[in-house]
This record gives sequence, structure tokens and C-alpha cells, in this order.
Amino acid sequence: MDLKELGEFGLIERIKEALGGPMPDGVLGIGDDCAVLPQAGGMETLVSTDMLLEGSHFLRGDIPARLLGWKSAAVNFSDIAAMGGRPVGSFLSLGLPAGLDSDWMDAFLAGYKECSQYCGAPLLGGDTTTSQDGIAINVTVIGQCQRGRSRKRSSAVPGDLVCVTGPLGDSAAGLKLILERHALSERHARLDRASQMAGQAGHDAEAGQDAEAGQDAEALVERHYRPVPRVSEGQALAATPGVHAMMDISDGVASDLRHILKASGVGAAVRTQDVPLSAELRRVCAQQGWDATTLALTGGEDYELLFTMAPGTEPPVPYFVIGTITKEKTLVWEGSSQDFIGFRHF
Amino acid sequence: MDLKELGEFGLIERIKEALGGPMPDGVLGIGDDCAVLPQAGGMETLVSTDMLLEGSHFLRGDIPARLLGWKSAAVNFSDIAAMGGRPVGSFLSLGLPAGLDSDWMDAFLAGYKECSQYCGAPLLGGDTTTSQDGIAINVTVIGQCQRGRSRKRSSAVPGDLVCVTGPLGDSAAGLKLILERHALSERHARLDRASQMAGQAGHDAEAGQDAEAGQDAEALVERHYRPVPRVSEGQALAATPGVHAMMDISDGVASDLRHILKASGVGAAVRTQDVPLSAELRRVCAQQGWDATTLALTGGEDYELLFTMAPGTEPPVPYFVIGTITKEKTLVWEGSSQDFIGFRHF
Repeated sequence: MDLKELGEFGLIERIKEALGGPMPDGVLGIGDDCAVLPQAGGMETLVSTDMLLEGSHFLRGDIPARLLGWKSAAVNFSDIAAMGGRPVGSFLSLGLPAGLDSDWMDAFLAGYKECSQYCGAPLLGGDTTTSQDGIAINVTVIGQCQRGRSRKRSSAVPGDLVCVTGPLGDSAAGLKLILERHALSERHARLDRASQMAGQAGHDAEAGQDAEAGQDAEALVERHYRPVPRVSEGQALAATPGVHAMMDISDGVASDLRHILKASGVGAAVRTQDVPLSAELRRVCAQQGWDATTLALTGGEDYELLFTMAPGTEPPVPYFVIGTITKEKTLVWEGSSQDFIGFRHF
Repeated sequence: MDLKELGEFGLIERIKEALGGPMPDGVLGIGDDCAVLPQAGGMETLVSTDMLLEGSHFLRGDIPARLLGWKSAAVNFSDIAAMGGRPVGSFLSLGLPAGLDSDWMDAFLAGYKECSQYCGAPLLGGDTTTSQDGIAINVTVIGQCQRGRSRKRSSAVPGDLVCVTGPLGDSAAGLKLILERHALSERHARLDRASQMAGQAGHDAEAGQDAEAGQDAEALVERHYRPVPRVSEGQALAATPGVHAMMDISDGVASDLRHILKASGVGAAVRTQDVPLSAELRRVCAQQGWDATTLALTGGEDYELLFTMAPGTEPPVPYFVIGTITKEKTLVWEGSSQDFIGFRHF
């Protein structure tokens, strides 16, 4: 059997079976945003790791190195935020092709530093090595929180409200715009070659359309490239007793909420019309003929926090209620006749 | 400038410049085998990370998946050993080509588990993702020790004895044998194709020579593929007051000792004839015409511990004295007219 048949979650299950086993006291292993390790002095260490590979997660020509640096750090600190922890530091492994220009690396590091400073967590170590293929990046982040305060995926209870910390779908729409530009620039390159051969002017008319693409599109692209880890929101939510389960939205609510439901042994009803959408997303979707709700529920990479809380809880951060946790172990999309499936890695 | 010109240590310096900065109290960042983070209760957390890429660190056809699994864990736990820590757990990121057979992964995981169990540290988390190129592996290990007990590279003092925990050079000789076999099997494949075309028997005579390669060669290949992290030795050394500086030997004494000398602001005189060599290495080198001392000092990947200690210290582990720390900031190879340079990554 090849890995594609197994699928990402099948693969994780296989790894858990092969390597899992009884955990030492107080240790939370595979299956949440971070692992949790108890410390002697009433604190807990949180650890998470993520790998980003050229060709799978990014195309070198499509994402500026500085933004890739930011994003590499951000998606990891988001896992610390998802547990309600305070970021402590990070570790960066870089596999770089020998012929890569050092300017690329300097820009990458500048972006990585920006995000690290934003999160208040210095680089503490790492590894550098030559890659025979594309760029390989692995980030491990360390966080900490008071013992018993970190929020897991497994704590949702029937009757909880399902909430998110911000509008969804912007990042997915940004990615669609980036991919369209990529296709367009390839077309331009072909046109350029053709017009050079014919001695004619190329794609001026289309370049004019590019210039009109506008601020909305730029805002969405920025949100795809430069997600903001919700570290202060996560800590504030973890300090609020009525907040139960929590995770960050990396694969889309449709996929991520299922993790909370499975881990907690519950179901949910989501009111699709209550899913928060930015004005930029609504306008771009209207213009492009895209379904904003589908993007918001399935697109992923928003890195907002998804959490459940007892009715009546008043967390000290902005939030949007999108549904309710149910005893029935089903996921119902109210206000829509379709099912939503999140991003699959394999 | 491309990265090759910068070199590995130039690259690390660049990263330190770009991302370094004042560390929080009690935190040791980039520059040793592990980062050290203080805990509230009189303990310290140790963290190290390493990336292994197909084509740079291993060839899929040359190393059995099970041994690659062992080695991926071992080289990381060796960093915990190098500081004198107790391994607590590990995090594994795997970038895998979509068409890879799941048998490969199962064997890899089995080897990874063997080493993790040997070190007493379970897998606590990780990441799995698709690779468009070769296999990418990143391991992060977490360890712990009593505050103030971890051994750094910067603590060597003039007059210290320079010691290693075991014979050196076996792994480098093992790698040379593997590469020769690789070249030989490619030759066989060419011969097979040629003899198929000519309708003749191929390489029976050479296959006979292979069978005679013998147990010595197997032992050296095993030591390359299956290095044993010196975790109990490292903890015993860290518990011995006279032991000063410590690190593990990954790039060869010639390279690694220079890190201790630079970090400590001292020099050393190494008696090359005192460098411990296994009987297997001596015999294979005699047979192949290789210089065992050069392999022992420059080859790397032995994962023995290199440490310095005050004369008269009696650490409770086997060790070999190979030289003395000097006030003069030079590295002198006594008993040899040549200079030795360790492995360079870029």
C-alpha cells in the first residue's frame, strides 16, 4: 500500500500505533496541537513541530522569502496559542540547496525574526544542512503555561457554544488569487515569448486588469502569507474558566471541528450563516463567483482559534458564535444542504 | 553570494546575527549541543533538533529503513547525552513522497521506536506531510537535568585532560565500505545489463569476493548505521564534579574539539597515537590501505562523547585520554606531521 491510500490521518494513526504507548504521568502526547510535559514547579512545557517543504507547502517564486519566514514561525506559534500557552522560544531547521543565494536566506530570517519578536520568543537553536532538492524547513516551538490550564481538543461538552476568534476564509481566497496570478504570469511568459518571436507588444491589456485587482485582493493575499498567531487571545481564553476545548484553524473548520468532536466524543450543529466573513472576502467572492461560506469552512490556514465554551461565559477577547455542541455524535451544517470537508494533506 | 561560499559555520553565524539577541535569564541559546531552558522547580529543559534529507544524509537504497529510523533518533538523543541530560521524549516530522510504500515507513518507525525505547523516551508528537522530492526527516528531542548540572562546550580549562568514551573512526570506515559497495553494485548492474545483452553469466567472480568481506566490515557498517547514543555515560559524567566541557562527536574530533577550544578560549595538544581504535578498524584499514588515525580524527558520526576533566578525576564510565587542554590557543597534533580537518556540511 502506498501512503496516498493510507491518508494523513491513517498515517498518524499508524505512527501512534507503532510508537505510542503508555505516557509518563501528566504527559500528553500525539493528538493535540501541542504535547504537554509537566515541570517540577507547577508549570507545563508545551511543544509543537511543523515541516514546510518547497513544492508541497510553498513555491519559491510565489512567496517572498520574508513572508515565508514569518509564516514558518507563525503557524507554529499558533499551536502554542491553540493550547493557551505563552511562547518561550523556537528551533529552526533549514535544508537549503547549495546554490541558493544568501539574500533569500537573509530575507527569510528577517521575516522569521519579525514573527518571533511579535510572539516574544527568541530563536534558541536549530540545524542547517544542504538539500539536494528544494528548500526544507522545520520549526519546533516551545511554550509554557500553568499546570492544568492548557486547553485540549477533548474538553467540549454538549450544550457548549462553538466559537471562533475572527473571520474565516480570507486565507483560502488569498491562496486562490495567488494561484490564479501564478497561472496568469505563466500565460504572460508564454505571450511574451510569442510576441518577441512575432516582434509585437505583448499583454498590455491584461496588465491593465492586474492593476485593477485592488486592495481587497491584496488584503486576502496578505492574510494567506502573513497569518497572525492568536497568542494573546489564546492565553486570555485559557484563563477563562468556562472555555472548554480549543484548537487553531489550520485545515478549515470542517476538518478541525471534527477533531474536537472526535476527541470529546460529541457532535455539533454549525449555523453556516453565522460563520464570520470579512467584507473583503464577500466582495472578492461576489466578483469572482466563489462561494464565501465554502471557502470559510473548508479552506484552512486562517489560524484563528476555534473553541467551545459554556453558555454565559464572557471571554475577554472578540469572538463569534457559529454553533452548538450536541450529544448526538454528528456534524450538522444548518442553513446549507451540502457537507463540508476540510483540507487533506495526502 | 551563494550558501556554499558562506559555509555551514558562516551560515550559523549569519543566523545568530540575524536572530540572536539577549537571551532571557538562565537560557542558553544557539551554540551548544542543546539549548537549555530553566524550569521553575530547580530543573532545566534541554532541546535539540536535527534534519536528515534524502540525497544529503542518506540514500534510500543504501540504508535499510529500520536502521535509518534508529539513526534518526540516535543522533538526536546523542545531543541530550552530550549535555548530560536524561531524554524525556521526541518529536518526529516526516516529509514523504506520496508513492512511498507504507512498508518502508513501518520499518522506519520500528527502528525509531527501538532507539526511543533504548533511551527511555517516547514519541510525543510530530508532523507528517507530502514531499514532492525525497524523504525529509526532522527530529526534535527534549531532555532534562538538574539546574546547573548540564555540561557545556565552554567549560574547558588549561590543564584538563581531553577524553573520549570509546574508539573512533569505525563509523567513517563503515561509510567508506558502504559507498564502495554502492559503486560495486552499480558496476554489477551495468555488468548484468551488458551480460543480458550478450547472453552471458555476469559477475559471479566478484560476488565471491563480496562474501569474503567478513565480520570486521559488517561490524564497521553496523556502527555507521546504528550509532549508540551515550545517554547513561553522559549522565554519569555530568554527575562527576571534575568533568568540565562536554559534547558528542558528530563531525570528528578534529572539528568538534575545535568547538570546545573556541567556546572555552583555550587550545589543546592531542597525542594522535593515543586515539582509541577498534581492532576491527585496524584490520580493515590494514587490508584496505586506509589511515585509521585520519578516519578516527576526521570521519565523524561516532557519537562517542568528547569531554575534558581535571587531572585526577575518576568518572564512573570507560574513557580514553587523548590529550591535554593548553593555555595557548592552538590545536597541536602530537605524533603526526599533518593537520586534521573534520567534516564540513556545505
